[in-house]
Amino acid sequence: MRILGIDPGLRRTGFGVIDARGAQLQYVTSGTIVVPADLPLAQRLKVILDNIREVVLANAPNVSALEKVFVNANPASTLLLGQARGAALCALADSDLLVHEYTALQIKKSVVGNGHAAKGQVQRMVQTLLSLNGLPAADSADALACAICHAHISPMAERLARSGDLRAGRTARMHNGRLTG
Amino acid sequence: MRILGIDPGLRRTGFGVIDARGAQLQYVTSGTIVVPADLPLAQRLKVILDNIREVVLANAPNVSALEKVFVNANPASTLLLGQARGAALCALADSDLLVHEYTALQIKKSVVGNGHAAKGQVQRMVQTLLSLNGLPAADSADALACAICHAHISPMAERLARSGDLRAGRTARMHNGRLTG
Repeated sequence: MRILGIDPGLRRTGFGVIDARGAQLQYVTSGTIVVPADLPLAQRLKVILDNIREVVLANAPNVSALEKVFVNANPASTLLLGQARGAALCALADSDLLVHEYTALQIKKSVVGNGHAAKGQVQRMVQTLLSLNGLPAADSADALACAICHAHISPMAERLARSGDLRAGRTARMHNGRLTG
Repeated sequence: MRILGIDPGLRRTGFGVIDARGAQLQYVTSGTIVVPADLPLAQRLKVILDNIREVVLANAPNVSALEKVFVNANPASTLLLGQARGAALCALADSDLLVHEYTALQIKKSVVGNGHAAKGQVQRMVQTLLSLNGLPAADSADALACAICHAHISPMAERLARSGDLRAGRTARMHNGRLTG
């Protein structure tokens, strides 16, 4: 099972791809989509959309994982994050990838063993679990942590992801009564 | 100039297309994308993405207009609206359409002549301005009002929309250093 983890943000969107074979995890790739802040909103979202689609094309994951978002204290930030998240989810659904969402608590518990672990601890555990030479950058680490969480929590996910009927895109198309793919 | 107005929402997304030749407005089409509430979030966003892309393909607008959103009292609703809005903006940018945003005040002032007009007044003025036989549905009326606002406020917009360099997609691609279209 190849898992794509995404950590969406309007300025920086992290991504990380791992392979999971039972308990064995293997690092594939990770990085950060840096979105130029001077672009109009629609174009910034398109940068996220295009780059995630490219990551999917280049790495062919079977399934994807995101952190469930809790609303920010600042409503304007919540709206911006929502739009970035919308772009990321569109890219995944548009690539026919099933999307799993996990809370920050689930992710930290699954990666560090402590639901209230600090960000630095998550980075170090991601480095350890994936045998990386260096500490991963914050955005990449968060995205890889999502992917690791999915590998740990959902050993059933591979079967689901391989079952065509449950693929995000196909179901959406069915509900639309259209047949484009 | 053919203008696509969008009124995004996670349950219902309104769209409306008009032609503007100087002060003359002509109704082209309008409707509501009804998103099945029982789908997972990513698939709901894909319904919005796919259907707006289809409206663009079918009607070939030159430019698009949306209402600028003000954050909701309920942060969870703000996040959901943000995600729906992200999907709509992705569809527009993905279709290489320039996106203009107007505040509710600008739209009501432009359509009704009063920035604090009631929803019903907007519907009736949309009907009058576009010589529609019946009152348009609420979502369609809001989307058509966005398009009318753009026709009124921005007579310069056509030239901008026709200038390739300013198109959303192209700029985004340039900033990405990629050449896919």
